[in-house]
Amino acid sequence: MTTTFTAKDVQELRQRTGAGMMDCKKALEENNGDVDKAVEHLRKKGIAKAEKRAGRAASEGQVVSYIHHNGKVGVLVELNCETDFVARTDDFKQLAKHIAEHIAAAAPIGVNKEDVPAEIIERERRIAEEQTRASGKPDNIIQKIVDGKIEAYYKDVTLVSQPWVREPKKSIGDLIKEASAKLGENVQVRRFARFQIGEA
Amino acid sequence: MTTTFTAKDVQELRQRTGAGMMDCKKALEENNGDVDKAVEHLRKKGIAKAEKRAGRAASEGQVVSYIHHNGKVGVLVELNCETDFVARTDDFKQLAKHIAEHIAAAAPIGVNKEDVPAEIIERERRIAEEQTRASGKPDNIIQKIVDGKIEAYYKDVTLVSQPWVREPKKSIGDLIKEASAKLGENVQVRRFARFQIGEA
Repeated sequence: MTTTFTAKDVQELRQRTGAGMMDCKKALEENNGDVDKAVEHLRKKGIAKAEKRAGRAASEGQVVSYIHHNGKVGVLVELNCETDFVARTDDFKQLAKHIAEHIAAAAPIGVNKEDVPAEIIERERRIAEEQTRASGKPDNIIQKIVDGKIEAYYKDVTLVSQPWVREPKKSIGDLIKEASAKLGENVQVRRFARFQIGEA
Repeated sequence: MTTTFTAKDVQELRQRTGAGMMDCKKALEENNGDVDKAVEHLRKKGIAKAEKRAGRAASEGQVVSYIHHNGKVGVLVELNCETDFVARTDDFKQLAKHIAEHIAAAAPIGVNKEDVPAEIIERERRIAEEQTRASGKPDNIIQKIVDGKIEAYYKDVTLVSQPWVREPKKSIGDLIKEASAKLGENVQVRRFARFQIGEA
């Protein structure tokens, strides 16, 4: 088998994924030297690793802030990882900054589904039920439609499932998993606050 | 009656209090040209005004942040006033900055008494009761001692009654009232968040 890639390709791949030399070579071999495909291949592997990591304790990290529109919107985020070493890297700080900026723009209600208050979901469910009934749908499918609408609502308002404002093909969850794969640690948004002047 | 003060005294007094020319002249006359006494006189008048102002709607303001210790502690504060004009002044921004920095250092639980969760007060009350009983005090005065301890606890953990870390003779409440008197608007801390890495 002839190699169809150069040392420079390997270097590029290492920089883009943070993966080790041998993994990068193997990924290039398995993808006929196509660097983009190799990135995807490694990300998939990396993300699988990140999901295993998600159970590990993440009690280090950084608190970052982002202030928008002349001080009319402000965000504070606690991003956690496993070691202070990783917390001090530029990649980690960059991720925290991107997330804070995203929260300022997209105004999620909570990090995950569990963080959305039950009374908000009840209100959304009532609205969805009334709308679905008003459309004259038969009773036996109303519940299914309402459940679908509530799932969509959760996706809209939880940070990890929101499309990233800078690159809407990725969710914030994807962004975190990529960083986790690259940094080799469990990375989690622990909490955030978003204050906007004049909001009820 | 001879004036015992100069135009420069009036100017200094105006700068220190933000009060109008006529008020400053009158204050100097009534205090025999003693600028410090005149400041106190105007502050008392000003603070009386600020207290009247406290009922007015404060829905403008600024959101400011303060990050401490290499990103291990972060604070977000919403400080409100009545007009965007005041919100953009350096005095207002400076006050917001001082409050955020104070919160990072002093870690209050809430802005006012009402913001301290009831379960925390119940826990403190239990501890105070046990301590007071253990000291062998008679039953009829235990309740009074416990009430006093709870009042002291509230003072310790509410932002407005905490002594300002930079100048402990003033409380944060005093600082806000002074700014309110100088700026001529109702000024209020609406809310804050304080995140610290590794806290439970």
